[in-house]
Amino acid sequence: MTSSVRGGRGRRPGSPDTRAAILAAARARFAAAGFAGTTIRAVAGDAGVDPALVHHYFGSKDDLFVAALELPVDPRSVLAEQVVGPVEGAGERLLRALLGVWDDPSVQPALLAMVRRLLEPGGDALFREGFLPVVLVPLGSALGVDAPERRMQLVASQVIGLLVLRYVVHAELLVAMDVDALVAVYAPVLDGFLTGPL
Amino acid sequence: MTSSVRGGRGRRPGSPDTRAAILAAARARFAAAGFAGTTIRAVAGDAGVDPALVHHYFGSKDDLFVAALELPVDPRSVLAEQVVGPVEGAGERLLRALLGVWDDPSVQPALLAMVRRLLEPGGDALFREGFLPVVLVPLGSALGVDAPERRMQLVASQVIGLLVLRYVVHAELLVAMDVDALVAVYAPVLDGFLTGPL
Repeated sequence: MTSSVRGGRGRRPGSPDTRAAILAAARARFAAAGFAGTTIRAVAGDAGVDPALVHHYFGSKDDLFVAALELPVDPRSVLAEQVVGPVEGAGERLLRALLGVWDDPSVQPALLAMVRRLLEPGGDALFREGFLPVVLVPLGSALGVDAPERRMQLVASQVIGLLVLRYVVHAELLVAMDVDALVAVYAPVLDGFLTGPL
Repeated sequence: MTSSVRGGRGRRPGSPDTRAAILAAARARFAAAGFAGTTIRAVAGDAGVDPALVHHYFGSKDDLFVAALELPVDPRSVLAEQVVGPVEGAGERLLRALLGVWDDPSVQPALLAMVRRLLEPGGDALFREGFLPVVLVPLGSALGVDAPERRMQLVASQVIGLLVLRYVVHAELLVAMDVDALVAVYAPVLDGFLTGPL
């Protein structure tokens, strides 16, 4: 795979090694200091590069955080594009988008690695200060719900359990159910979380 | 801590080391061969003891499996006693029993270790061939439901997500909700899984 960021520019002194060093520094900072406690400047210092180079390669701190998750897709664009719409039918749109990504064998290993990282010691800061505000809350807004921060925590409590049963422990029933069957069972649950009393 | 099993008997050549060796052998066998592929005889062979000694210390293969989970309580007795009853109200009884155990700080670390083990490589066999038939299905029967094996997989998909959000990643909302609030949100979901169409 080639880096689309560097193609045809060549102005910066960066190299694949520089990019990797920034990512490694970002992962270490996010893990140790959380999302809120991490600055682009500090990551640049750890990697021994100019902060402008971090911005050049990765954009904003949100973008750097998503890059540090090392996912083959950016969940903000891939999911948000598919789920944007009115709150009616939001649960079904979210489930179909999520299962589409997770059922893709080229993407699944990276997603599993991300889930495992969330569950490791220190993963709680990664979830609360990174994954929730950077990925889940914007997704809730795309789904058209009020109070997305609260509602997306309820949604996550069902989605993470479903993903763990289907893709991590391979529970027979959850593996055997196709997307339509999963939507029939889980979309009403998610709609309840997305629109019910809080 | 003293071993209650050995108190006052002293007939067997067992020692705390023997007991630990049997448990270590059992964990390795269950992890490598799954629950169905593990026999008391094979565990005894690995530990270098007579199979009768394994039965003496741990009872049946189900009992040995639960012992190998190293929980401070036996989930079969503690949970089943509290949840047994008619299918009406089953979701609430299950949630109150589960949260009571998980909110107990003396028990929680061992439960967290068990959840982490389920999510590690090899944890899928532990779940499918051990935890599901030995712990979850009997719990479903105690809850008075039909098709407990299928329904308890749906229940697990919500309960595991809730436990991960509240006790592993410490999602703010799920940590702040008290038991009554959690019951109000999640008991209807569990009741839907326990009694809805399959």
